[in-house]
Amino acid sequence: MQKEDLVQCHNRIAPYIHRTPVLTSRLIDKMAGAELFFKCENFQRMGAYKMRGATNAILQLSEGQRSKGVVTHSSGNFAQALTLAAKSLGVKAFIVMPTSAPRVKKDAVLEYGGKIIECEPTLEARKAAALKIEAEMGTTFIHPSNSVNVIIGQGTACMELLEEHPDLDFIVVPVGGGGLIAGTALAAHYFGNKCKVIGSEPFAVDDAYRSLQSGKIELNKTTDTIADGLKTNLGDKNFPLIRKYVNSIIRVTEEEIVEAMRLIWERMKIIIEPSSAVAFAAVLNEKDKFKNKKVGIIISGGNVDLKKLPF
Amino acid sequence: MQKEDLVQCHNRIAPYIHRTPVLTSRLIDKMAGAELFFKCENFQRMGAYKMRGATNAILQLSEGQRSKGVVTHSSGNFAQALTLAAKSLGVKAFIVMPTSAPRVKKDAVLEYGGKIIECEPTLEARKAAALKIEAEMGTTFIHPSNSVNVIIGQGTACMELLEEHPDLDFIVVPVGGGGLIAGTALAAHYFGNKCKVIGSEPFAVDDAYRSLQSGKIELNKTTDTIADGLKTNLGDKNFPLIRKYVNSIIRVTEEEIVEAMRLIWERMKIIIEPSSAVAFAAVLNEKDKFKNKKVGIIISGGNVDLKKLPF
Repeated sequence: MQKEDLVQCHNRIAPYIHRTPVLTSRLIDKMAGAELFFKCENFQRMGAYKMRGATNAILQLSEGQRSKGVVTHSSGNFAQALTLAAKSLGVKAFIVMPTSAPRVKKDAVLEYGGKIIECEPTLEARKAAALKIEAEMGTTFIHPSNSVNVIIGQGTACMELLEEHPDLDFIVVPVGGGGLIAGTALAAHYFGNKCKVIGSEPFAVDDAYRSLQSGKIELNKTTDTIADGLKTNLGDKNFPLIRKYVNSIIRVTEEEIVEAMRLIWERMKIIIEPSSAVAFAAVLNEKDKFKNKKVGIIISGGNVDLKKLPF
Repeated sequence: MQKEDLVQCHNRIAPYIHRTPVLTSRLIDKMAGAELFFKCENFQRMGAYKMRGATNAILQLSEGQRSKGVVTHSSGNFAQALTLAAKSLGVKAFIVMPTSAPRVKKDAVLEYGGKIIECEPTLEARKAAALKIEAEMGTTFIHPSNSVNVIIGQGTACMELLEEHPDLDFIVVPVGGGGLIAGTALAAHYFGNKCKVIGSEPFAVDDAYRSLQSGKIELNKTTDTIADGLKTNLGDKNFPLIRKYVNSIIRVTEEEIVEAMRLIWERMKIIIEPSSAVAFAAVLNEKDKFKNKKVGIIISGGNVDLKKLPF
């Protein structure tokens, strides 16, 4: 993947996404002892950066492929992203979701015009259901995080951030399936000025931390975290990029995630989801590392259930 | 009050306030059937537009007056605003607060370095305590909403909004003590292009609605509303401006306020307080009036207790 791939991707998806603002806060900077730049993908269409990768993946399909629709398995933000991107481009979207998925997530997909295919709540059942649709209908499967076109799309958030603040010392992003951090690391490599990319993870799902240590993809043993977007594992497309370009991973506790989320809600008056708070928690957690540095933080999304807040 | 007073005020306070962003949302526009422009004073310093008026009021004092400090009675946003403005300008601030004021409000004043004077929880006791400080120490009393310098300061939010969007048909603002709506109406008169200013109030505290009907200042009989910033009454400085320049007042129910607040939190991912939601609720409530019009809405503040949400 070259610099030009990112530039072309950004031009390709620009008409379908928001250019999100970069916010700053003197109070938050004072608390962190660093200069922080929040790239607000919670203000992105459908409320998360996933809109970028989903849009790019569909735009890279041929006319013939598009006519047969796209399919993915996700109960989170990528389901909404693929559905909305498909709708914007006049393409059918099939979303495989476990029967146990919350009503609110299903409603969001239906609202954007997606078709839900229900399956048993296991990873195997989800994969099988998606494969079946692919085989029977010729629909193209788009993976939420382990797809080159998705990774490049997610990298455009970092491109925009570095365009406005080219001299960032660090960019910190949450790590779930690895699509965002791989795209960010690629973009920081091509557009940053010695900008280091750092991942952040809850201790409860620290598969990326352990994978970087062992040199192979490690799996999560539990999924017991409030950061519901970060429970998935890395993949063979994004892990090599993470190994090559990511500086390190910082792990944080559940208490630190909730406290970081509360601080951003209270002080910056923006709604971010727990997964996004993980990145800010990492900066608060290792203050010495970031002291007086310019640090970009990608606020990955703002989709929360207001009836189930941790405060 | 002339156009020039507003221009000079804006120049005077600019170094001490944020120029807040104007946000838009396609989804919200679709729901309202109008083009809405949200002036986000929830992103203002200390989280509300009150910072503007408080800063202007202190900057208009003489050196001698400043050396003796300022005093106000408020248990809400103006207490924090006057304290932070005073701190920025090296002036002492005394805040009269009822013994019953929530701990979180007191802490906010103390955090900014203000001195709290406690009194009984009645309006008479608050006034008496403030007068005592004024008399004994030569401290200048600054009223939260019924002061010319405060009113002009609050008007600068509307000035900025009209600078960016000069062709707004309407601006809708919540009405509490009347400082914001009086300043807004004045600014719309001088800087708008036939822009009508509309106030919005909860039915439970519809003193402004009744005052415009009777032609004299009416009082609230109850204070039973979630919009805690709107319980106060109009004053003799702002009411004449409201009578002269405000088009009308729209009243909304408590349910409509909560629903409007929820929509903005969920769809725009920003934190606004119930008082701010009243203005958006008014637009949703009279869709015919605003149909296909360009409507500015001043999001007055974002200070909420996350432990006591109405969702």
